[in-house]
Amino acid sequence: MKMFLTILFTFALLSSSSHALQQDFCVADLSLSDTPSGYPCKKPSTVTVDDFVFSGLGVAGNTSNLIKAAVNLAFVAQFPGFNGLGLSMGRLDLAVDGVIPLHTHPEGSEVIIVIEGTISAGFISASTNAVYFKTLNKGDIMVFPQGLLHFQFNLGKIPALAFVSLSNANPGIQITSSALFANDLPTEVVAKVTFLDIAEVKKLKGILGGTN
Amino acid sequence: MKMFLTILFTFALLSSSSHALQQDFCVADLSLSDTPSGYPCKKPSTVTVDDFVFSGLGVAGNTSNLIKAAVNLAFVAQFPGFNGLGLSMGRLDLAVDGVIPLHTHPEGSEVIIVIEGTISAGFISASTNAVYFKTLNKGDIMVFPQGLLHFQFNLGKIPALAFVSLSNANPGIQITSSALFANDLPTEVVAKVTFLDIAEVKKLKGILGGTN
Amino acid sequence: MKMFLTILFTFALLSSSSHALQQDFCVADLSLSDTPSGYPCKKPSTVTVDDFVFSGLGVAGNTSNLIKAAVNLAFVAQFPGFNGLGLSMGRLDLAVDGVIPLHTHPEGSEVIIVIEGTISAGFISASTNAVYFKTLNKGDIMVFPQGLLHFQFNLGKIPALAFVSLSNANPGIQITSSALFANDLPTEVVAKVTFLDIAEVKKLKGILGGTN
Amino acid sequence: MKMFLTILFTFALLSSSSHALQQDFCVADLSLSDTPSGYPCKKPSTVTVDDFVFSGLGVAGNTSNLIKAAVNLAFVAQFPGFNGLGLSMGRLDLAVDGVIPLHTHPEGSEVIIVIEGTISAGFISASTNAVYFKTLNKGDIMVFPQGLLHFQFNLGKIPALAFVSLSNANPGIQITSSALFANDLPTEVVAKVTFLDIAEVKKLKGILGGTN
Amino acid sequence: MKMFLTILFTFALLSSSSHALQQDFCVADLSLSDTPSGYPCKKPSTVTVDDFVFSGLGVAGNTSNLIKAAVNLAFVAQFPGFNGLGLSMGRLDLAVDGVIPLHTHPEGSEVIIVIEGTISAGFISASTNAVYFKTLNKGDIMVFPQGLLHFQFNLGKIPALAFVSLSNANPGIQITSSALFANDLPTEVVAKVTFLDIAEVKKLKGILGGTN
Amino acid sequence: MKMFLTILFTFALLSSSSHALQQDFCVADLSLSDTPSGYPCKKPSTVTVDDFVFSGLGVAGNTSNLIKAAVNLAFVAQFPGFNGLGLSMGRLDLAVDGVIPLHTHPEGSEVIIVIEGTISAGFISASTNAVYFKTLNKGDIMVFPQGLLHFQFNLGKIPALAFVSLSNANPGIQITSSALFANDLPTEVVAKVTFLDIAEVKKLKGILGGTN
Repeated sequence: MKMFLTILFTFALLSSSSHALQQDFCVADLSLSDTPSGYPCKKPSTVTVDDFVFSGLGVAGNTSNLIKAAVNLAFVAQFPGFNGLGLSMGRLDLAVDGVIPLHTHPEGSEVIIVIEGTISAGFISASTNAVYFKTLNKGDIMVFPQGLLHFQFNLGKIPALAFVSLSNANPGIQITSSALFANDLPTEVVAKVTFLDIAEVKKLKGILGGTN
Repeated sequence: MKMFLTILFTFALLSSSSHALQQDFCVADLSLSDTPSGYPCKKPSTVTVDDFVFSGLGVAGNTSNLIKAAVNLAFVAQFPGFNGLGLSMGRLDLAVDGVIPLHTHPEGSEVIIVIEGTISAGFISASTNAVYFKTLNKGDIMVFPQGLLHFQFNLGKIPALAFVSLSNANPGIQITSSALFANDLPTEVVAKVTFLDIAEVKKLKGILGGTN
Repeated sequence: MKMFLTILFTFALLSSSSHALQQDFCVADLSLSDTPSGYPCKKPSTVTVDDFVFSGLGVAGNTSNLIKAAVNLAFVAQFPGFNGLGLSMGRLDLAVDGVIPLHTHPEGSEVIIVIEGTISAGFISASTNAVYFKTLNKGDIMVFPQGLLHFQFNLGKIPALAFVSLSNANPGIQITSSALFANDLPTEVVAKVTFLDIAEVKKLKGILGGTN
Repeated sequence: MKMFLTILFTFALLSSSSHALQQDFCVADLSLSDTPSGYPCKKPSTVTVDDFVFSGLGVAGNTSNLIKAAVNLAFVAQFPGFNGLGLSMGRLDLAVDGVIPLHTHPEGSEVIIVIEGTISAGFISASTNAVYFKTLNKGDIMVFPQGLLHFQFNLGKIPALAFVSLSNANPGIQITSSALFANDLPTEVVAKVTFLDIAEVKKLKGILGGTN
Repeated sequence: MKMFLTILFTFALLSSSSHALQQDFCVADLSLSDTPSGYPCKKPSTVTVDDFVFSGLGVAGNTSNLIKAAVNLAFVAQFPGFNGLGLSMGRLDLAVDGVIPLHTHPEGSEVIIVIEGTISAGFISASTNAVYFKTLNKGDIMVFPQGLLHFQFNLGKIPALAFVSLSNANPGIQITSSALFANDLPTEVVAKVTFLDIAEVKKLKGILGGTN
Repeated sequence: MKMFLTILFTFALLSSSSHALQQDFCVADLSLSDTPSGYPCKKPSTVTVDDFVFSGLGVAGNTSNLIKAAVNLAFVAQFPGFNGLGLSMGRLDLAVDGVIPLHTHPEGSEVIIVIEGTISAGFISASTNAVYFKTLNKGDIMVFPQGLLHFQFNLGKIPALAFVSLSNANPGIQITSSALFANDLPTEVVAKVTFLDIAEVKKLKGILGGTN
């Protein structure tokens, strides 16, 4: 027995430093300034298992809207446990005819897994403008490479549910139509840099809340 | 019209180089030697949408075994579309009492999402040996930081289904009991480096197929 | 003298291995398959100074087109010396009223420096849709963060010249209007994922060479 | 002389900014919160050469314990000079029959160099469970790839001394038996996820200080 | 109209979190401690377009000095908008006979573009001591791989102007002669580690402001 | 027993794919072209423990030369087992008065550990030209940050032995005096970019084997 207690003693030494031996994890302290590699860490002594568990994706989003779809995110701002780990998630609820509009993630790749229903998904090559576009059934996964424009929509006759994972705790999401029309960039500038008609830009600015 | 054709011409220029302008994606050519950053890329001209879609996770694993569980992987070797994108996935089927034994991923963090049933999951801090351990219900996610020992088991009365995503196309999986007992390391060495009894090591070597 | 020759001998030892001591550089061998970290290296013994020098940006692009602009790229496919070094460049020639249409670089940040003329440039926040938009004069630089939509146009009465640098040897370039309209994605799908009118999509597909 | 002073002046300009021109180094300020890339830096003006030198590995560890071994670490918490530099070290003292138990480094590869004595060392492949196992003599080095289980023990008749270097300032160390038995995870759970006998788990929990 | 307003509502949801959805950018807050990945970010709500624009490179440096050259830097300390984006810039003004002395960037590769005049530039291989050396004309670019010694000088009969970009927001710059002679390392030590004559070291220490 | 065999079967499944489940390691195949992330991997089936063990550092270097010192390297070219693991090593033998001349590692930080004797070591700040310089005794370690000029010399009355580890499998080594004088760069150019006297450059070129 004595000898085993000594083992214990030796191991204790390995973790008795006043500073932790290592950074096991780095749960975000969102009250501090972000850095290029993520948020500073919460003090490990205040971290509990609840910092690593998130229930927000268990709730269906409200799809009673025009895109007939809802996105719930678990990026680092919603789920600080992802900080520094190179992962985040999202939940997509698509009612019949629901659409996740064309968008990019400026700093991450994405994989989607279909849980219920049938989803058409695609991404557009930056190099050739080729569209990689396919119908996904329950259990199928599809990957959308870093930074490329992609979209998903419900192709089926029942609501669809899918989850996505991304390769960054903070991948960002830039919805093309919001970026183009829900801003205060003058209409002529939007038209000039997109080749869209002035009238079309004005209409969509009106709808999506843009000004100028 | 002429002027628009000229635009087209200008854009065409942007992609007319004999080499592609950019690496939009890098689907693995598994026939070539791997590198520290992943496999060499398939020629882009031979890539189709099917390189980005994988149906292998749609099939329930066979849980008629002793762990009453099955793991289907979509790492780069199974799904070459993940190459270079910093993501991979897996499907966990857990019959009642099913267990995913203690393991690590040597090169990746993991997030689990519970689709059906109730799963107990936990990981063990390397710094303090504290266990972060919780019961997860449908829709809950939990993150397991890079390289730490973790496990999952079905706590409920019905089969459970979960998907996992990992922060690396090739994260590896080292199951502690397989590593310890399904090898040819002499029994005395295994005992010496684990403090386990010789008899226990011999028993588990016998069961798991180890020798010596 | 003898002793100095011995120094020489010692130093020679440091570089006499049959394999080079180190990877000083890794000029791309474009004939081999790309990898997620870049192209395999040309044999160092065949590399000359000309592998590190590129004159293609010294030539003004032809702006006699509808965007009244030209982009010459020095990405790794054009200038293999950038391979593995985390840098690339481009030259922008903008005639009066010239425009570089809205685009992203899926895998890189960009900085522009204005050499001649006056350029309006901006990028759109993914987080808030705010537009960071400013007139740049000769000698001004502006940075466009990784993956965000941005644009430049000539605001002045004379031609403008600018150079850009990017934080990746192969950053990609996805021009939003080309991606949307110069592809074979069915018109209804484009409309569905962008909120644009069918007629508008058809018109721009016609102009930019898209089908369906 | 005047002209040389002017050179001096020019060079001075290069470092006269109120903020340092560059981050030469980033000695950890352990009083601030860690981040995913390491600790915030001490103010450069307070840094001295003593921040880059550490004498803690010069002292033999006390091996009068049951593993007959001692590990002294120089990770960033012990030696803040390693912060941000992708390196750390440790000293292994192994008395006759001394053992460094099976363990992983969750975020780093390791190389060992034997200074005195004869050490058996090995690591276990996650992919095949193959053991790469060899006797190392004075001056031999062996590398243990990122995240894999490995061990070392004294095979000789005299004490052994070795140093290890790791590819991360904060690589972590997870000793399998401590992780399994020096925790408060219920005995049945430990048994369930490892296939060990309940009695064996209880015995080792008792020895190593685990509860439940 | 109602339906479009609902879209707007849905999109608004995507950015209504009390924390930003994502890190679009991370303008350096130079008042906080640096980290290994860069400075903590300014609060996004205080960021304006002026944080992304810098005019300091528009001004010619004063070359009335002995090197007949001037370097203006836009590293993160001068231009906080570069923080976290893997880029920085500099402006080189070289009067006739002007020289940028031999130097390295400890943490970055560099590309130069010649805007006016004729510049001789070169770098020295660490592996073979071969010099990659060439005359660059207006519009030529040349890349200097990470960490290698390089130099530039005006070869022409008129002043030369060039801009450089580097692959790091904080690449550092170590001018060999300043490092060797503008310090307080004892003359004998400098001579010992360089093979230079004592007299030569003393002379250059005198000129460049070194002591001892 | 039957049930345990079934476990075995399940685990076997985890590694029965025709491609390995994961990249446990990536021993360099030096016969293939290097890439920016390291060499392509040897086929795992041909790898043995000898790929992970290297004895070349166990042999004292010959210090019967003018620097009275010898450096043996274990970079990836000498020890392919380091490939992809972010580590390399070297052995320094310094006779009495032995010197490791001033040098940088273009792509890595270094830590030294003194095994025998007394060594003076230092590095020079790029930001301030300050020298961080100290005498190291047996067991002391000192870290030299990425890319900065550093040196070591024997300060004692007996031979000294030290080992170094670096944060890159292929960090490079650029010895300042070799780079300056063992090349074919014209003497006037060397003088111009260093401020050294023509005569001094000629003398050292003669000694170190430079031409022109």
